[in-house]
Amino acid sequence: MAHDLQHPSEPDPVLAGFRKSIDNIDAAIIHMLAERFRITQAVGEYKAKVTLPPADPEREARQIARLRKLSEEADLDPEFSEKFLRFIIDEVIRHHERAAAG
Amino acid sequence: MAHDLQHPSEPDPVLAGFRKSIDNIDAAIIHMLAERFRITQAVGEYKAKVTLPPADPEREARQIARLRKLSEEADLDPEFSEKFLRFIIDEVIRHHERAAAG
Repeated sequence: MAHDLQHPSEPDPVLAGFRKSIDNIDAAIIHMLAERFRITQAVGEYKAKVTLPPADPEREARQIARLRKLSEEADLDPEFSEKFLRFIIDEVIRHHERAAAG
Repeated sequence: MAHDLQHPSEPDPVLAGFRKSIDNIDAAIIHMLAERFRITQAVGEYKAKVTLPPADPEREARQIARLRKLSEEADLDPEFSEKFLRFIIDEVIRHHERAAAG
């Protein structure tokens, strides 16, 4: 089929429609994450300037509780939202370490 | 200070402003992820119905290349975007396994 030659691995229009939606959502998330890291970079610089400690376990606990609640409302696994926040915070810490190293 | 009694761990208005932005972005990402998992669930059901294989390594490779490119444009570490997609795909696989287990 001519169709298969053009798009050998995406011959199914239903599947292609789902994938288009996934790709749009992924692009949105990537841009949100880029903005989030811009802000956490500013937070890191600000905390260094006013000599606040880099980590704030109380703030993290509040963030986790809030995201778990939001996830439940959005029918997303709350465990996953906690894992997700941890994944992002670990990356923020790596950014700060890289910045500190120079 | 009365302010400190009300918000003991967030006495700094500059920091509070940054955190408000981070919280808004996190809420947006959580809702995007909830929608993404709704779609991947539909994809899983559709693939089972039309007997397509659950995994598609070629599609994954295209997704990774695309997100790396988007990340570069958004000044986000491309390595991170690849790790992020892997993190999400692993969760999708867990969802499918749970669904298959009943």
